[in-house]
Formats: sequence, structure tokens, C-alpha cells
Amino acid sequence: MKKFKILAKDGKARVGQLETPHGVIETPNFNPVGTQGSVKALGPRELKEIGVQIILGNTYHLMLRPGIDLIKKFGGLHKFINWDKPIMTDSGGFQVFSLGIALEHGNSKVLREDEGELEADNFKKRPRLNKITEDGVIFQSHLDGSRHVLTPEKSIQIQRDLGADLIVAFDDHESAKHTKAEMEKSLELTEKWGLRSLKEYKERKGVNVNHPEGVNVATPLLYGVVHGGTHKDLRIRSAQFTDENFEAIAIGGIYGDHQQLCQIIEWVNQATSEEKPRHLLGIGEVQDLFNGIERGMDFFDCVAPTRRARFGSLYISPKNGGSRKNSFTINIRQSGYISDKKPIDPGCLCYTCQNFSRAYLRHLYIAGEILYHQLATYHNIYFITKLVGNIRQAIKNGEFKRMKNEYIGR
Amino acid sequence: MKKFKILAKDGKARVGQLETPHGVIETPNFNPVGTQGSVKALGPRELKEIGVQIILGNTYHLMLRPGIDLIKKFGGLHKFINWDKPIMTDSGGFQVFSLGIALEHGNSKVLREDEGELEADNFKKRPRLNKITEDGVIFQSHLDGSRHVLTPEKSIQIQRDLGADLIVAFDDHESAKHTKAEMEKSLELTEKWGLRSLKEYKERKGVNVNHPEGVNVATPLLYGVVHGGTHKDLRIRSAQFTDENFEAIAIGGIYGDHQQLCQIIEWVNQATSEEKPRHLLGIGEVQDLFNGIERGMDFFDCVAPTRRARFGSLYISPKNGGSRKNSFTINIRQSGYISDKKPIDPGCLCYTCQNFSRAYLRHLYIAGEILYHQLATYHNIYFITKLVGNIRQAIKNGEFKRMKNEYIGR
Repeated sequence: MKKFKILAKDGKARVGQLETPHGVIETPNFNPVGTQGSVKALGPRELKEIGVQIILGNTYHLMLRPGIDLIKKFGGLHKFINWDKPIMTDSGGFQVFSLGIALEHGNSKVLREDEGELEADNFKKRPRLNKITEDGVIFQSHLDGSRHVLTPEKSIQIQRDLGADLIVAFDDHESAKHTKAEMEKSLELTEKWGLRSLKEYKERKGVNVNHPEGVNVATPLLYGVVHGGTHKDLRIRSAQFTDENFEAIAIGGIYGDHQQLCQIIEWVNQATSEEKPRHLLGIGEVQDLFNGIERGMDFFDCVAPTRRARFGSLYISPKNGGSRKNSFTINIRQSGYISDKKPIDPGCLCYTCQNFSRAYLRHLYIAGEILYHQLATYHNIYFITKLVGNIRQAIKNGEFKRMKNEYIGR
Repeated sequence: MKKFKILAKDGKARVGQLETPHGVIETPNFNPVGTQGSVKALGPRELKEIGVQIILGNTYHLMLRPGIDLIKKFGGLHKFINWDKPIMTDSGGFQVFSLGIALEHGNSKVLREDEGELEADNFKKRPRLNKITEDGVIFQSHLDGSRHVLTPEKSIQIQRDLGADLIVAFDDHESAKHTKAEMEKSLELTEKWGLRSLKEYKERKGVNVNHPEGVNVATPLLYGVVHGGTHKDLRIRSAQFTDENFEAIAIGGIYGDHQQLCQIIEWVNQATSEEKPRHLLGIGEVQDLFNGIERGMDFFDCVAPTRRARFGSLYISPKNGGSRKNSFTINIRQSGYISDKKPIDPGCLCYTCQNFSRAYLRHLYIAGEILYHQLATYHNIYFITKLVGNIRQAIKNGEFKRMKNEYIGR
């Protein structure tokens, strides 16, 4: 029986279902990011109430803290964090890449996330903390400088030990500063690492991971990752390679601007089998969700909703002024909201909008109250979760284009 | 009809009910502190789920931020923060006192709370920010240095504008460094201010506060505050004065150590009418709850449960090792909890203990995750709320002494 079923189509946009060891996920869907074993400011109870069907955990962060051995002792990540629905993990490839050339260029997302900056521009340049070899990546923890190694085999082992439902092959990551020749070299490494990931995955397939609690960890779905930057030939080569070897297709790497991202998706989806699930790694802004789904993507993950919430950036619908220009957000810090009795997004049915005013949220933000983070993040995750749910309905009704037009125009 | 009814007694400990404009409160009870319009890290939904019957807001903090005019526009504090159960406000007296001599001595709780220090010892000494006159207190905001005035009349007006159910007369505050003569002078000021507070209260009694939304704010109960430090004669004089003039008795000021606090409570309660509700201001540690209730106190408020949670200090019952010595707490930061699968307080029925391990909470704390604060604070507020609930039951059953003995010994 096939794990992924396509149930309806509207142009290239499609509605499907992916069966995982922890239940079925409706697609298209969005994975909130729970980097360190928690979707920032929300517990599993709130996530379920919102209707979140899957969350993403980061291999890199979890292996450093609290460590895989500890999570194994608890019978896997689901039990450790008390989340019984599907979990996806990434390979760690992007994060260990971020400790290299991205650090040198002062643009490392790993450190940026931890140090709480919204914009990367003012981030200090630092010496790199990684060394990439054919075998894998040796790196120093951004937390304490301790030395670690990630190889394709190790990445798969960790993701299996975590007990994730969807896992990702270990990949090298091209840089926007790479020449095409360098990108090609990086792609070759990704292909070699992809095959080694696949081999490790197959050898452990069907094997119950040796959790001390005797937990039966069912076999997850393995994504291969398509790289190649903004180069058509590299993307198509990588897409074909991934399609030949993997049951599920993830797109990663350098995307360029919104328009280039659309092109990349088109190239990749044309070169891969239609019946496989497709994940666009690290993407989740409203505009990109529409563009990706329109071109046949099924899954997205992104820190945008949680990260935006922490900095006062809260989603609003088109009927309340949300548009591409403002990224469908208001900034609650602005003085215009001081005495605004409206909810964040009038008409929104989330707990926050049903119970609290913009003025109160602004007060909580300005006063540095922790409650702000819960209420703001709740709304942002709700907004994106309902958005993809409404998009699924629109696809079923043959109204995807109309809905997209309402949000971001043609 | 009397607002306060005593329903059962066990020695001097008593169970009662206090009727307020926003519902009945069972006593003895504990007010979690929502300084700036939020009980730190918990929303109204969580507070109700826990069974919290009343919260306390701080006049000083709310008048500075977001300001009383804004809260009036929303129809009062209940509506602004979406809490429809009783609210108590304090007079602001203690906070404006904290901006004076306490600042000079490097021991201001107002600043300490804001700057996130658990212990006051290492707090820097600063020039005072207040000036106390017979009329009232002129002070500078600890937030931005702006100048403000609090008088007895203004304090009552603000508390009425906030729409609180229980309010407190404006009081001067003695310092532990005061001579007895200085304390007597402070007490005289408290008495004068108490009478002016009472006059303002009576003049506004029955008058619907002029909320722009036309909200009918029912008349709150006004507490007078007993001062006098650890001096028996001053405490008795202040208790008699307060009993003569006020319907409800609050104890404030300098308490000394745990034993001196017990003495003060005994002096005051002997000198005041038994049928009036009695509030012990700023007190809420487990040991003091038992000692206070044993001597006939009905209400307590304290930042201890929320503040402790923020610093990893989580309540445990005697059966799990809680005692006077450890203040009935474990410190979740300790490495002994790294892989501890038990909940914070095994047997506790709170959401946190039913769903999460000490190991996960420790991980969230160490990783700086916001979710830690919600889960930890939830447990601490639940613990204290259930504790006073169980004490009420024990009093009804004539088992208060047995329960007290189980917790803190004879």
C-alpha cells in the first residue's frame, strides 16, 4: 500500500494524505519548527488545539542538547516532548553548513536563531566552526565549542534514534557565494552522501531501533534533497538523481528570490515523479506557500510564524490589510495599536483573537511579559495552519486560483 | 447582608466566603500576583483551569504602564486583561516606598522584580526616586524617570478606575532601618492617609465610576493596612485604629523573621474584630501560609510561586521530600534531574506533572525555551492553589493541625 495518496488536483496544486507511523498528515501542510524539542512558546496541548498535524525537530540542535542518548532513554523524541503526532527531523546538513562559510560571511542562521536577531545584517563575522571532508562534517558546537562529527550514517542513525516519522538524507549545502563549479562539487558530495544515507536507512529499515524502553520505532519515510542553487541544469540533474533513488523529494539549498524559487520548484517537480511527496525545506512565508502549492509542493517548514511572533510581527488576512507588501503582518509594537480594541486579525477564530485585543498584546510585548509570546505565537501558528487547511479546501473545490488571487494576486 | 461569612473553624484557623462584585472567593486563599496585567507566563484560561479564584494587580505598575486612562477606555482591568473573576489591587504605597530608602539601601523590590534578580543581596545601591510629604509621595518612574504623584485620594481613584473588587488604603511603609520613633512617625502618616483613603472611598461609594464604556463598577471592599514593624505596642495601636475605621484588615510593613511574623499576626488578630476578612500582604511561602492560617489569616498574596518558577525553583510535597529546609522546592537546574523521568511532584494532578518529566523541564530551562516558563509556573501556582484548597478542607474536617504537622511540624 502506498504511503502517499493524491486525492484531488487543481492545476498542479494537489491535496493528498501521507501515512506515517504516528498518523496521517493531510497535504499541503506546514510543519511548525520545534528546534530544541519545543515549538517556541507553545506546548503540545496548544498545538493540537490549533490543529497542527506535524512538527519538525532539528537533528543538529537535539544532538548537542539534550543529546541523543538522553532522548533514547525516554523512548524517542515523541515521548520526551510528549507529542504523539508525526515528527519530521532534518539531516543536520544545513546547520553544520551554517557553521562554515555562512559564519565567515556573518550570516549563520544557527547562531542568528540562538542570539535572537530578526535581521541577519548586523550579525558579526566569525571564523568558521566546521571542516567538510568526503567522509562528513567535523564541527564545533555553537553552544560550548565541543567537537562533533556528522556523517550520512550518523545523521540517519540519530534521526532513527529520535524516532522521527519523516527523515532527511544528509546533504552538503551550496552557498550563494559559490561559483557554479563549486556548486557542482557540492552537489556531487550531496549525491554521495545521499546514497550513503540511503544505504544506512535500508540497513536499519525494519529493524527496531534499540531503545532501552523497547519502543517499536516503525520505519520512517526518507527524503532525498535536491540541490543546485539557481542553476537549471544542476537542479534538474539533482532532481533526477533524487527521484531515481528516493521515495520522497525535498528541495533545499540556495533559492534566490521569490521568482527564482518558483523556477526551481518547476524544474524539480517536472523532473521528478508526480506521486512522491514533495517538501520545500525552510520555506513558509505566505507568498511562498501559495507559489509552492501552485507548483505542486506538499510540505513546508519554517521558523517564520514563531520567529515573527517573538518580534511583534503578527499575521493578518487580506480582508484586514494583509498583503505581499507587509508580508501579511502588522507589527504590534507600533504606537498605533496602543488603544486598539480589535483582535490581531478580526474574524480570526483562534484563542488569542477570540479573547484579547491588540492593545493588550502590545502592552504585554512592551512590558516584557512572557504571556505575550504564548498568545502571539498561538495566533501566528493558527493563522498558517488554517491557511494551508483553507488552501486544501480550495484545491478540492477547484478554487485555488481564486484564493491565491485574493491573497497575493495573479 | 454581610460580604464575609465564616463557615467553619478549627482552633483560630477558619474557612470563609467573601462576596465580591466578580464572585465569591473561598478563604483561606492565595492571590497570584499579576503585576502588569498578567500573572507571569499564565493566561486567564490556565488560571481558571488551575482553580485560581482571585489575582492581584499592582497600582504602581499599572499606572505607569499601560496607564490608567487606557485601562479605563477598555472598561477596567478585568476587561483589559480578560479576567472575569475577582481582582485585588494594592495601594501603590509599598512600591513608592521601595523607590526611597530601600533604593538607598540597595534593596528595592520594585527594581529587583524588573531586573530579574532572585536574591537582593547583590543589588546595587542607588539614589532615591521618591519624596514623601504629608500630602503624598512624589516619585520618578523606575521605567523612564518620569515624575508622578500618589496621594491617598489618587490611589483610591486609580483602584476604582481599575475596577478592582478588593482595594487597599494608601499607606506609608516603615523601614527595617527605622528607629522606633521613626516608625511611629510613619504610622501616624499611615493613619492620616488611611482616613483620607476612607473618605475618598466613601465619597465614591455607590457612584458608578465614569468608564467611557458605561460599565457599572460595583463598590469594592476597602482594606486598611496595619503597620508598626515588629513593635507590639505599635502593631496593637495600628490594629485598633484599622479595626475602628475599616471593614477589612490587611497586615503590611516590616515582618522580621518567621517567628516575629507569627507574633505580629497574633497581636493584630487579637486586637481586631474576628468577623472581618484579614489579608497578609506580600506573604505566600508554604511555611508562612500555615502559620498565618493557624492564627486566623484569610488571604495571602506573593510573587513567590511565579518568581520561583522563573528561576527553576519548583514546589514539591512533603511525601516527595518537600520540607521547611528546602522551602518545599527542588531546583530543576541541578544536574541530578538530567534524566529524571518523574514529574516535578509525583502524585500532583496538574497539567505539567501529568504530561512532562523533570528531565524535559530541565532541558527546556537550560535551552532557554519559553515553554519552560508556562509549564513551571503552571505547576507552582497549581501547587499553592491546591495547598490552600486542601487546608480549607482540613479546617472543615478539624484536621488542620495534622496537616500543618505533616508539612512543617508543630
